[in-house]
Amino acid sequence: MNHKNDFLAHHAPWGSYSSFILGNVGMGGGFALSDVHSPNQSVYIAYRRGDELPFVFPFLGAATVKAEDFDATAANKDQPRTSRVLQPEEFERTYKWASDTWSHGGLRFSVLAPFGEVPELSGLSDLDRKLATCPCVIATLEFDNSGSTEPARVLFAMDGISRAFEVDTAGRLLGAAYRRSWGFAAKAGKNVSELQTFDAMSQTFTPESAFPANKKQHRLGGAGGLILEVAAGEKKTLVIALGAYQDGLVTSGQEASFAYTNDFPSLESALEFALEHSDHYIELAKKRDAELEASTLDANQQFLVAHATKGYLASTELLRRANDGQLLWIVNEGEYRMMNTLDLTIDHLFWEFRYHPWTTANVLEHFLDRYAFTDSLKLGGAGGISFPHDMGVSNAFSPPKESSYEVADLTGCFSHMTMEQLLNWVLCATCYGWKYDRAWLKQHADALRQCRDSIFTRDADGDGVMDMDTARVGTGMELTTYDNVDEALGRARSSTYLASKTWAALELLAACLESLGDDVTAVRERAASAVKTIVGYSQSRGGALPPHLDEAASKTDFVMAIPAVEGLVYALTNDIAIPQELQDVMRQHLEASFKRGCITERGGWQLSSGSHNTWMSKIFLNQFVAEQLGLKTEARAHEEHVRWQRHGSRLTGPTDQVASSDGAPIGSKLYPRLVTNVLWLEDAKQS
Amino acid sequence: MNHKNDFLAHHAPWGSYSSFILGNVGMGGGFALSDVHSPNQSVYIAYRRGDELPFVFPFLGAATVKAEDFDATAANKDQPRTSRVLQPEEFERTYKWASDTWSHGGLRFSVLAPFGEVPELSGLSDLDRKLATCPCVIATLEFDNSGSTEPARVLFAMDGISRAFEVDTAGRLLGAAYRRSWGFAAKAGKNVSELQTFDAMSQTFTPESAFPANKKQHRLGGAGGLILEVAAGEKKTLVIALGAYQDGLVTSGQEASFAYTNDFPSLESALEFALEHSDHYIELAKKRDAELEASTLDANQQFLVAHATKGYLASTELLRRANDGQLLWIVNEGEYRMMNTLDLTIDHLFWEFRYHPWTTANVLEHFLDRYAFTDSLKLGGAGGISFPHDMGVSNAFSPPKESSYEVADLTGCFSHMTMEQLLNWVLCATCYGWKYDRAWLKQHADALRQCRDSIFTRDADGDGVMDMDTARVGTGMELTTYDNVDEALGRARSSTYLASKTWAALELLAACLESLGDDVTAVRERAASAVKTIVGYSQSRGGALPPHLDEAASKTDFVMAIPAVEGLVYALTNDIAIPQELQDVMRQHLEASFKRGCITERGGWQLSSGSHNTWMSKIFLNQFVAEQLGLKTEARAHEEHVRWQRHGSRLTGPTDQVASSDGAPIGSKLYPRLVTNVLWLEDAKQS
Repeated sequence: MNHKNDFLAHHAPWGSYSSFILGNVGMGGGFALSDVHSPNQSVYIAYRRGDELPFVFPFLGAATVKAEDFDATAANKDQPRTSRVLQPEEFERTYKWASDTWSHGGLRFSVLAPFGEVPELSGLSDLDRKLATCPCVIATLEFDNSGSTEPARVLFAMDGISRAFEVDTAGRLLGAAYRRSWGFAAKAGKNVSELQTFDAMSQTFTPESAFPANKKQHRLGGAGGLILEVAAGEKKTLVIALGAYQDGLVTSGQEASFAYTNDFPSLESALEFALEHSDHYIELAKKRDAELEASTLDANQQFLVAHATKGYLASTELLRRANDGQLLWIVNEGEYRMMNTLDLTIDHLFWEFRYHPWTTANVLEHFLDRYAFTDSLKLGGAGGISFPHDMGVSNAFSPPKESSYEVADLTGCFSHMTMEQLLNWVLCATCYGWKYDRAWLKQHADALRQCRDSIFTRDADGDGVMDMDTARVGTGMELTTYDNVDEALGRARSSTYLASKTWAALELLAACLESLGDDVTAVRERAASAVKTIVGYSQSRGGALPPHLDEAASKTDFVMAIPAVEGLVYALTNDIAIPQELQDVMRQHLEASFKRGCITERGGWQLSSGSHNTWMSKIFLNQFVAEQLGLKTEARAHEEHVRWQRHGSRLTGPTDQVASSDGAPIGSKLYPRLVTNVLWLEDAKQS
Repeated sequence: MNHKNDFLAHHAPWGSYSSFILGNVGMGGGFALSDVHSPNQSVYIAYRRGDELPFVFPFLGAATVKAEDFDATAANKDQPRTSRVLQPEEFERTYKWASDTWSHGGLRFSVLAPFGEVPELSGLSDLDRKLATCPCVIATLEFDNSGSTEPARVLFAMDGISRAFEVDTAGRLLGAAYRRSWGFAAKAGKNVSELQTFDAMSQTFTPESAFPANKKQHRLGGAGGLILEVAAGEKKTLVIALGAYQDGLVTSGQEASFAYTNDFPSLESALEFALEHSDHYIELAKKRDAELEASTLDANQQFLVAHATKGYLASTELLRRANDGQLLWIVNEGEYRMMNTLDLTIDHLFWEFRYHPWTTANVLEHFLDRYAFTDSLKLGGAGGISFPHDMGVSNAFSPPKESSYEVADLTGCFSHMTMEQLLNWVLCATCYGWKYDRAWLKQHADALRQCRDSIFTRDADGDGVMDMDTARVGTGMELTTYDNVDEALGRARSSTYLASKTWAALELLAACLESLGDDVTAVRERAASAVKTIVGYSQSRGGALPPHLDEAASKTDFVMAIPAVEGLVYALTNDIAIPQELQDVMRQHLEASFKRGCITERGGWQLSSGSHNTWMSKIFLNQFVAEQLGLKTEARAHEEHVRWQRHGSRLTGPTDQVASSDGAPIGSKLYPRLVTNVLWLEDAKQS
């Protein structure tokens, strides 16, 4: 069993698609750019008091880690130990909403990745825009030597650098960088110095080593860092900015660059800005940390919210399109790097509505302008408007009307999700317009009407449940977002999960179109049909919903699947009335699911009784729905889910698809989608 | 013993600091950008005739290679083989000056990296400038199906790509790329199609696999390529451009971008240009190939020249400085990535004089403008002008007057090389000016005079041999370029190697300054003193030179070191008369060296009898000197040196520092410096 302090975390500036990664014992960390994987380069956080052996945190990459540092018994007895690598039980790690802090002895190293509301950039002052988009996070390196009679030396350094800053910035900054791409810096000052060398530890702490102590600058060295001297009896804090810089055009298909490059001409300028405004970032991080701590969430929930937040931020990307200057908001799909996957967009909705609803509108318009298509149905006839799964992958925009994910002629993973994405666009658009922007709703009335018609077309028999696959599937079959859980959740046609989303989409469409003066009788009737169909199948199964609302499947498929209730979240967060009978059916279904295979022995949630692959983002969302229906999640569920993330998936950060036995990652690693748990805070706010 | 077909080669466009790497069996290859290391990504070169199992060349990276592909006995018997991975003895590899060709059955895959004279860019037409700097090489994929009654399908593909070209280029190009950084393309045409998928082999050759045969485009796939269909009885050739594109500012210290970015706005534009002008590149490659084949060099020498050339080109970088538009020529130091290491510049001289002497002048001026310094001597007093070891590392320019390599207070590797670099600058400058540009000589007369004075100052006793270390060494000692061979070659003071270079530098300075009207009596006298000192020590040691020309060392150090004669090359290539007694001494020294430990049992050259670390670049250079002195290199020496490069160092491409036992790499891997062997061609031209 690994230690609770041993898990990967992303620390990411908003919209920069870059993160500083740290946390796995024995594995290093470092910067990921247009990616979320750790480079596993050594990160040295170390100190020495007087002549004692230095302590170093165990974030040493494969290239630099030595067996004897971890295990004195494995040491070559002829080789003196040169440092003491801290074991995870020896140090403290405090993981908060906007910070991550490691402490040992007098040392306290915090990485702060603050976040908050970001209004539309066009309405911001230059300073506020730069504060919001600066591609840096802040670290503080504190050392309390007040109780000591010996001076202390403290090191923060990283492997993988190629240059140092002092000379290139005319002495203003100290620190190091890899080319023009990423780096870290502190303001020059008394008791601080810059290091570039082959071996950060021996250069800093072993004056008798190959390089004399006064030679801190060897430009061939691949390790760079900052050294802080703390006299006996003193307490000092060094503020460090850590940042990444991706210059020029970074995408294909549509050419775009990072929005921040307009304001920051270089890595150095961004780091310098972050240092000048470090108070702002430190205060903002404190505010967020305090806010989560003051919430009604228990400690486990707080961990899950903090973890999800860091994963979301790491995948965010704010671009400016080259041909017209248009800002483009992208949330990349964790390890998969797909861009604005629409079935993730809808799960990021609650987060974005809390902090920057305009980014949702940006994505919706981008889908409408470039990716919307009109299809035919597999069984013949016109389909209607819908949207592809995503906008591309790995900074390559797909061609108009196409995703990177979907392929024809398949019945499983990689098939089309046309109905699901249609519902996702409608739900995002109506939720956004209804709550935040009625004018936007009016502007997009025609698109909403086309979507209404398209939903109708795909429900040929009028029972409120999708029954028509798009012709895009070829010989294959349509899927839902639950593409690889099991067929109970994967197949789109008659999906109970999609039925509840269809009901919600119709209710929100009705509300919105009615507000625009449309006659929405047919829409309301279709929503009522959906309720009737759902309720009908519930009665025929004694209070539990089958995963698919069709005669054949309901008699043979006894899998219980929690996401049947998922669609209710859009009604619950928008004050749309849920018919009492639908509430009752959904509550009964959940109760039955909990009893029949959807709660593990240790209390974890398993989305489908037929699969041990369970998705954290969807658990969190459905927990919110369940609580609203009066079914409070047990505290031990949160405890188990923390165990999954903190232990089972410790190497893969926030991980969506995990094994319900132990939380081992199955897929969707290093993922942004878990941020659905911000719903818990909305809930807390209301109560 | 590995097979002769199994060795790494770089295929690099001139000045682009990028290369397409291929050649190691079982290891993959791919593009290196601002680097020379192989990414070891799978490169698929494969074909299938009719329904037979496809053949694929063995360039599959770790991620994709399967044991059963290499060893049928290791195969899981339940899994059918899906391809036949060619063993090195099954295919032909033809390695020429500007090409590298792999053949099997009807397939012939050639990579062409042509090169030639590049006049100063400012004097070229737009077209000629673009032809010279386009960052692409050309490959030809030929398939001869003329004797077959079955159709054939041929594949060229790579792993690690993130997008395909067809849609992004409106159908003009087919191919694939990693973001905007590197890629390959062919012109769209009949019988050619584009592939993007997870598994290039099964997608191309196994229609019954997971993806139907008509699904060549899955944008999530990380393998991309080109498929050529060849009907029964036909013969077809597909021309492919392979290129890298490094956009924007790429350096620090001085900000600069690649010169080609002015002419080519994107990777696609460069690839398209290369394809439009593929005839030019193919003809140029053929011309170079024919030229080397027609030379008097034996097959082994031809291999060594071709290998050296490819290594040199891979390290070349033509930049444009941002602040003033000045072109900057950089040759990077192979695996070490140091920029314009001056003790490599002098070894690249013969190559650059043959093809683009202006780049030498560019480097000399850059050193003079930014890096020249005036030092003091370690034992006190003024030193004079000199130059640091290099201009920086890994695209980070060092501050003025400083190298990335040199550090104070050391007696070995990483100490200063002040006298060596002074001589190197003088020799480069005088050789360049004397032969190619007398006006340049006049412009730099003052620098030459300062250099003359600085050489004098470092030879305090006036015997023509350096005896004063720079104060920059601190408590350490000055080195020569042979920093890590052994002390016989490493220590600068009294070095016989440096003495012969000092003599040559003084002779060339005398010739040049005399042509400018200076009184050069003192310079000639000092050159004569050097000769006298060298000859004197030769006599005292019975015809062999000690590695250091001082009383103590000459009595205790009986190591034989070939580079004592190295300085003569500058006289030999510039028609500077060599005093008969110096010629005799040098010839005797070589003869003695060959007898006393500098020729291995198998005939290889070992530069120093005291070290098994021998340097190919210097062997080649000194072979030229030896031949000019009448000592013809044995054919078996070339054979042994080919064995070292082709076998011992097969994983590290052209490798400078190798073990004299088997050619295993010791250092200086993937190196540009071996191109000294172009001297052999100069020699052949003369004879």
